[in-house]
Amino acid sequence: MMPALSNPFKYKMNMHKIKLLLAFLMLPMAVLAQEVKSPDGNVCVTFSLTGNGVPTYEMTYKRKSVIKPSRLGLELAKDKHASKGLEETSLMDGFAIADTKTSAFDETWKPVWGETATIRNHYNELAVTLHQASSDRNIVIRFRVYNDGMGFRYEFPQQKSLNYFIIKEEHTQFTMAGDHMAWWLPGDYDTQEYETVTSKLSQIRGLMKQSVTENSSQTPFSDTGVQTSLQMKSADGLYINIHEAACINYATMHLDLDDKNMVFESWLTPDATGLKGCIQTPFNTPWRTVIVSDDARDMLSSNLILNLNEPCKIEDTSWIRPVKFCGVWWEMIVGKSTWSYTDEFPSVHLGVTDYTKAKPNGRHGANNDNVRRYIDFAAANGINEVLVEGWNIGWEDWANRWKQDVFDFVTPYPDFDLKALNEYAHNKGVKLMMHHETSSSVINYERHMENAYQLMNKYGYDAVKSGYVGDIIPRGDHHYSQSMNNHYLYAIQQAAKHHVMVDAHEAVRPTGLCRTYPNLLGNESARGTEYEAFGGSKPDHTVILPFTRLQGGPMDYTPGILETQLSTWSENKNIIHTTLVGQLALYVTMYSPLQMVADLPENYAKFDDAFQFIRDVAVDWDDSKYLEAEPGDYITVARKAKGTNNWFIGGKCDENGHKSVVKLDFLDKGRTYDCTIYADAPDADYEKNHKAYVITHRTVKKGDVLKLMQARGGGFAVSLIVKR
Amino acid sequence: MMPALSNPFKYKMNMHKIKLLLAFLMLPMAVLAQEVKSPDGNVCVTFSLTGNGVPTYEMTYKRKSVIKPSRLGLELAKDKHASKGLEETSLMDGFAIADTKTSAFDETWKPVWGETATIRNHYNELAVTLHQASSDRNIVIRFRVYNDGMGFRYEFPQQKSLNYFIIKEEHTQFTMAGDHMAWWLPGDYDTQEYETVTSKLSQIRGLMKQSVTENSSQTPFSDTGVQTSLQMKSADGLYINIHEAACINYATMHLDLDDKNMVFESWLTPDATGLKGCIQTPFNTPWRTVIVSDDARDMLSSNLILNLNEPCKIEDTSWIRPVKFCGVWWEMIVGKSTWSYTDEFPSVHLGVTDYTKAKPNGRHGANNDNVRRYIDFAAANGINEVLVEGWNIGWEDWANRWKQDVFDFVTPYPDFDLKALNEYAHNKGVKLMMHHETSSSVINYERHMENAYQLMNKYGYDAVKSGYVGDIIPRGDHHYSQSMNNHYLYAIQQAAKHHVMVDAHEAVRPTGLCRTYPNLLGNESARGTEYEAFGGSKPDHTVILPFTRLQGGPMDYTPGILETQLSTWSENKNIIHTTLVGQLALYVTMYSPLQMVADLPENYAKFDDAFQFIRDVAVDWDDSKYLEAEPGDYITVARKAKGTNNWFIGGKCDENGHKSVVKLDFLDKGRTYDCTIYADAPDADYEKNHKAYVITHRTVKKGDVLKLMQARGGGFAVSLIVKR
Repeated sequence: MMPALSNPFKYKMNMHKIKLLLAFLMLPMAVLAQEVKSPDGNVCVTFSLTGNGVPTYEMTYKRKSVIKPSRLGLELAKDKHASKGLEETSLMDGFAIADTKTSAFDETWKPVWGETATIRNHYNELAVTLHQASSDRNIVIRFRVYNDGMGFRYEFPQQKSLNYFIIKEEHTQFTMAGDHMAWWLPGDYDTQEYETVTSKLSQIRGLMKQSVTENSSQTPFSDTGVQTSLQMKSADGLYINIHEAACINYATMHLDLDDKNMVFESWLTPDATGLKGCIQTPFNTPWRTVIVSDDARDMLSSNLILNLNEPCKIEDTSWIRPVKFCGVWWEMIVGKSTWSYTDEFPSVHLGVTDYTKAKPNGRHGANNDNVRRYIDFAAANGINEVLVEGWNIGWEDWANRWKQDVFDFVTPYPDFDLKALNEYAHNKGVKLMMHHETSSSVINYERHMENAYQLMNKYGYDAVKSGYVGDIIPRGDHHYSQSMNNHYLYAIQQAAKHHVMVDAHEAVRPTGLCRTYPNLLGNESARGTEYEAFGGSKPDHTVILPFTRLQGGPMDYTPGILETQLSTWSENKNIIHTTLVGQLALYVTMYSPLQMVADLPENYAKFDDAFQFIRDVAVDWDDSKYLEAEPGDYITVARKAKGTNNWFIGGKCDENGHKSVVKLDFLDKGRTYDCTIYADAPDADYEKNHKAYVITHRTVKKGDVLKLMQARGGGFAVSLIVKR
Repeated sequence: MMPALSNPFKYKMNMHKIKLLLAFLMLPMAVLAQEVKSPDGNVCVTFSLTGNGVPTYEMTYKRKSVIKPSRLGLELAKDKHASKGLEETSLMDGFAIADTKTSAFDETWKPVWGETATIRNHYNELAVTLHQASSDRNIVIRFRVYNDGMGFRYEFPQQKSLNYFIIKEEHTQFTMAGDHMAWWLPGDYDTQEYETVTSKLSQIRGLMKQSVTENSSQTPFSDTGVQTSLQMKSADGLYINIHEAACINYATMHLDLDDKNMVFESWLTPDATGLKGCIQTPFNTPWRTVIVSDDARDMLSSNLILNLNEPCKIEDTSWIRPVKFCGVWWEMIVGKSTWSYTDEFPSVHLGVTDYTKAKPNGRHGANNDNVRRYIDFAAANGINEVLVEGWNIGWEDWANRWKQDVFDFVTPYPDFDLKALNEYAHNKGVKLMMHHETSSSVINYERHMENAYQLMNKYGYDAVKSGYVGDIIPRGDHHYSQSMNNHYLYAIQQAAKHHVMVDAHEAVRPTGLCRTYPNLLGNESARGTEYEAFGGSKPDHTVILPFTRLQGGPMDYTPGILETQLSTWSENKNIIHTTLVGQLALYVTMYSPLQMVADLPENYAKFDDAFQFIRDVAVDWDDSKYLEAEPGDYITVARKAKGTNNWFIGGKCDENGHKSVVKLDFLDKGRTYDCTIYADAPDADYEKNHKAYVITHRTVKKGDVLKLMQARGGGFAVSLIVKR
């Protein structure tokens, strides 16, 4: 034993003092903060290193705190394959600033489809290169600051000491300045189909359990874990939205809340082994985005997430077009007809089960006669396409049986004549829309994908609705993991090769990738209209979604259920939680280049005068003006139809009703417009009197004012057609 | 509270008595055993229900116990998706015999390639239908009893109460009659490339740790877990081999030993979630096989595993042919040249990394000049094909980096002219053999598979060597899981569509599937010759493999390393652990329709007289006679070349040497043969004097006797060519 250690206690005390001294010496005498402001100066982001070289940022809007000082960094996992010991040195601290670069960018680009004809991408940038001496590694943190918020990402240049690494957790923090009001979904690795909860941040923990409702695949992970895009509102009137942009080759981010300190931390979706990402440099993470304004309308008109995505990578986009479609779908959702052809097979073996000898169940929706009926309906009403679900064999045991070889995506049921129906449709100027339900057997889908797309090319399909119901195969993987996100993008890229547009359901929530791959026409990735047949969604649902889910890209919400009482034509006892006119409004308030005309032809026949709005409304726009907005309360927007001078206005509200005053100051001076107003009747009410509506016609001009009463759970829709 | 429960202790005691009584009543008064014997009566298998309806079997050979009474059954896992509670009721007990059927079968079939021109499939069968009352389910246990052993499997008919289930564990037991000698490999979910250990069963536990040597992917699971095929020898002289046949859509079986009772139990390979199989009925498990004899030669000539596989499913097999091949391979294994093209890239991004600007490392094996040299060598020596590894981009960072997009299987390095080299080969009557190293990124391989096979068709390749080095992607899965076994078969089936033969390395050990899919020409799935360059394998290795690894199908062992001292031409200090002649013997003793001529052309030039045997030896046979055999000691076999009257004899021994007396009584009466004997020189020794050999010529006829001395680690090779 060494003499100096003869009194261990004393030794410890000495070491403690030395450590304190060292810590003091390592504190920077003056923290050198880097600041970058938005072009208009309202948004300010400050970067600094704190403590032991910990990257930290904060953000203000008009000098109000949006994000209080918050740490940045990634924790790495031990890589069993790593030959050197450095791979698992976390990228959390020990950094020094090696370089900083600031720059400005201002460009206007044209989306292939969108809410506006052009989009301005205008930001100031700060790129900080950090050096971690212990590992001899450089990383870059890049901030882009816009008038309506900011995004930042981690960049890992290829370098000798950093070629591959495994992410145990990304520890990006977002420290809130208060106990904000939030519109949140329970965090989950496998579903986004929860009802949005409106509460203070401090109430999340208490509300979590009841908010996790049953789903065919679900993996909640924390009592305070929520999904992005997360919309918040501060007590001092700031609207704050956290999401991500350009999530490519990376796991989807959730936010886990430290509800004592109101600190959100990124929480990535793991793979089957619990790890969160395998990275090869050079690599950039997705952008972590914070949109902010003191005007709620700015949240809806923000293009920040699209702007943070890469420009279009598809050279020829002439085959991409917005689509209005109807389909053999709602009748199955409601339970009147079936996806399956027969009730005889307890289970199906593709290639073995002989359908030609099976007794039809008599309720198969995708039969020739029924599909022709929908084609006729589409042709008569200017609807571009007809989706047909349940056309291909395998639906008798399709969901959640851990069945790998569930569909082949090419073999129709005996009562679905693939060739004849496509010809019938094409002769009427209509296309069929393909349906690929994968049952989340990704192994199976990828094996059949090329043949499936070839079949589509052969018969003239140009769009596919894909589905990912149930738990992922390979088992143990999750819907929003790095590998699954790679799969969704792979499917989109392969589709593009075949000039196929994609509408992916139950896939990952979008993060603006439709800018780069505009054949991704839409996603579900939230609770769609189908839930109205499963028990319903709350009336405020559709005045929350545009603030949250739609930040990343359009949603195939499947609106237009004019027969709001399902029991009038089925045994389903549910009602739609909007008025009839509320359904019309969604075609304008829920922006999407892919709009379903979701109800049955016979139901539209019952409300033909109201249906006229659905016939008329555009699905692509030259301009959009958000006139009123408050999350969970109301949204009013006017849009100018692509290539015309016609406008459409939609207003939607929650269960409290809303009174809108719309000043038509966006119309062209000197023109007159035929104005048709689809309004809730004075006694309309989403619970007691759904289908009471009033249609009025008048002539209007720029500067005129429309006063519009929205019923409880109601809305309004207005068409403004230029008089010739 | 009820009065009867006022004394809980008394109540419990009463219940205990009632339970005992019930248990007694449920014991069958007399166990009705079902017996089935082999056609020659030597093998006898008895099935019975014991205890509470537990399926049990035993097996004897000439009245000696082979398998003592052993239970059968499967434990099911809770299926989170199951709507009823029955799905997880295990199929372990509570059975009653509902039906038994016995039958006999005798058929002779012709393999597309093989050790003999025809194979007799002759067995007696017992099928027992068991009913589990508590779940209202039926299962069938089917036994097939051959003269050289037996196989049984579980069958699950499609039925109302059993459409899908999840296997937690298969509990098939094999109770040994003693502490047998065993030739075993450590059980592992990801590698079979261990050195075989020879020990008593009771010694396995003590030897396990040291036997698990390092591998690029490995997951040992138990201190007493071993792989199949497991060869054993009892004290009373029985040779017993446990393996499986027709492992399709099921996890590979290992054996876990209860070394107190000498009971092996099946231990399946799990998926990433730890579960062992997802089953949809109707379904049959693989056959569990027990080969037995008191003559070791019968273990080698047994066709039991092939017979238990389904007949050929490929209609036109005209394109399938046995292949002798050389290749640009050993020079990389030894370390003289490289798979990679350049040393400049720390990591590679396919489609981004620009090889045309990279500086070649000057040691790339698959360059045009070198490949032409091998083509010339093949053409000059009657070798059918030339394997070229390292021809395609991506090798700079190919292994174990969790890199998904590692190869595209179609893009050659700049110095490999795909078109010109194939033309050069074809003009000389030689084909190139394709190489697909997957790095175990199965997701990536399946995405590129169709293009890869199309490229092969375009350029005239008819065979592919595939590789699965490293951990499986999707992460968490294992090389021998149900899903990976599905992948290997998928690759074989897709290859068959393109008339491509497959030689899969690091894939699952074969279970006779080459009968059903004869384009599966070979597998590695064990420690091949490459290990001689990595430190060596023991001299007994090749006189164990035919008893173990080869039971399921041929191995691409890559023999023929005549330059046994690698340092003569490289910086590799290793030696081959056989004599030069021992390498020649392997072409006969290690049956395979796919035989590599693995050494370098310049090395063969040094031993041209010995090389003559490799030029001459056939790769397909009309007949095979195992003349001598003892596991781990020696194997001597004579084979008649397909479509000729010529014979080739090989003898191989372990480190103790062996003296063989070969009576040529299998030759045709009345013919004379040019007999060339390749023998170890009297002073040859695998450690001290590898390359000492003697070649002698004589004329022989039926009944003549050859006396052949095999050196330590040596062997002999004989060609017998009919005189005209």
